[in-house]
Amino acid sequence: MRKPGQVFLVGAGPGDPELLTLKAARILALAQAVVYDRLVSDEVLAMVPPLARRIPVGKAPKSHPVPQERINEILIELALEGLTVVRLKGGDPLVFGRGSEEVAALAAAGVPVEIVPGITAAQGVASVTGVPLTHRGLASGLRYVTGHCRDDRPLDLDWSGLADPDTTLVVYMGAANIAEISTRLMTQGMPESLPVLAVACATTPRERRLVSRLDSIAEEVAEARFQGPVLFVIGRVVSLYRSCPAEVLAMLVARPLRQVAHA
Amino acid sequence: MRKPGQVFLVGAGPGDPELLTLKAARILALAQAVVYDRLVSDEVLAMVPPLARRIPVGKAPKSHPVPQERINEILIELALEGLTVVRLKGGDPLVFGRGSEEVAALAAAGVPVEIVPGITAAQGVASVTGVPLTHRGLASGLRYVTGHCRDDRPLDLDWSGLADPDTTLVVYMGAANIAEISTRLMTQGMPESLPVLAVACATTPRERRLVSRLDSIAEEVAEARFQGPVLFVIGRVVSLYRSCPAEVLAMLVARPLRQVAHA
Repeated sequence: MRKPGQVFLVGAGPGDPELLTLKAARILALAQAVVYDRLVSDEVLAMVPPLARRIPVGKAPKSHPVPQERINEILIELALEGLTVVRLKGGDPLVFGRGSEEVAALAAAGVPVEIVPGITAAQGVASVTGVPLTHRGLASGLRYVTGHCRDDRPLDLDWSGLADPDTTLVVYMGAANIAEISTRLMTQGMPESLPVLAVACATTPRERRLVSRLDSIAEEVAEARFQGPVLFVIGRVVSLYRSCPAEVLAMLVARPLRQVAHA
Repeated sequence: MRKPGQVFLVGAGPGDPELLTLKAARILALAQAVVYDRLVSDEVLAMVPPLARRIPVGKAPKSHPVPQERINEILIELALEGLTVVRLKGGDPLVFGRGSEEVAALAAAGVPVEIVPGITAAQGVASVTGVPLTHRGLASGLRYVTGHCRDDRPLDLDWSGLADPDTTLVVYMGAANIAEISTRLMTQGMPESLPVLAVACATTPRERRLVSRLDSIAEEVAEARFQGPVLFVIGRVVSLYRSCPAEVLAMLVARPLRQVAHA
């Protein structure tokens, strides 16, 4: 039997290819097959070696997603062909990435696996907007939740625990449910005027931003018709964005530092 | 008057220099002055250009820390000399890094500033231990808190909100207060047997790990006499570490991929 290849679970970061880690870039350059999500940006995909096999497994709008079990099988099959396989995931593979399920399946199949972390979307949003995730006097801690439910089931979140004015709340994949999320937080006593930042396609040329309040974010984000993944930052730290003069904001925006071809 | 230089607030990541982002490495290579914390690893400091000025401002044991206001002044002074200044911070500058205070001070002084995110310690720990920060059925969300208090004041955390069995709790800078933290969580109903992972100097050659339970972590981590920053991961996801066979764990450990000289 052929010696199995190796699978690397690699965090692709929020979108800007310069936000890959050195390790991620080095390993991606060695890839013979790349299995990637919809959340991986075109700019990062442009770094895939030209001769590597490309296997998209993400949910594209109106197409049927590849089930997790099938993704696991694909990774195992490629590794058993002896290939160096990179499983590219938007953000970090172990933060809402289901990477640990893939690790377990690969380990059970005897396939060596290594994990390379990635900058998660909240950190990308913070770096380009200047909105810190913690700040003395405004937020002593930080919480990440997902606003997405499988199979359209109702959101099952600890609403009273989430309504903590001293914690920055970051909602991943929350665009479809932001109306319910904001209403529930207000019911739990969070102020209607609490500032909320919504950012789509953070750190890419398609980035769009919106600053609103808890009582109007759902309506405003619907009107804005953002395309692509949207991240919500809810909390007093967002007030630092509002108070920032425009010329400072302009400086804070990470400028694209090299041109990357993309579709 | 001379044109001011620019300050880059750069996340140095958890310790392994390969976990810097491409952008962080590119900007660090251009630095004319580097102002750094105690949490920045020797391996990352080895990447500072030989001719750059090095200004340590972190708390070393038994030495007096540089106050935040003085750090702000140092950054402004260096920028007003026209230098390209890198402010290197362990992890991510906007997660417990007080980076936003430096951004505000620099902006007020008219100094251009740009932020480069970094892999935070929790992500480094997850990638080398295989313990995911979220996992279907074990943790639907993730929370970061600091276990450190300024001026030895008592910890002021939302203990009832923290005691959420569906959320992975990560405690930064908690070594001094882990006894109080674990006791309070048990008082709020978290099970004594809840697994806890403690990792010192994650992703560096000095890394040390300990897996324990909520009722014994304080004693065990004291006995282990970890040196350097310790991160605690508290939650059911840690059970994935215990259940992992040793040979799988050995594969999961990110091997050092190049030798880096360090003191």
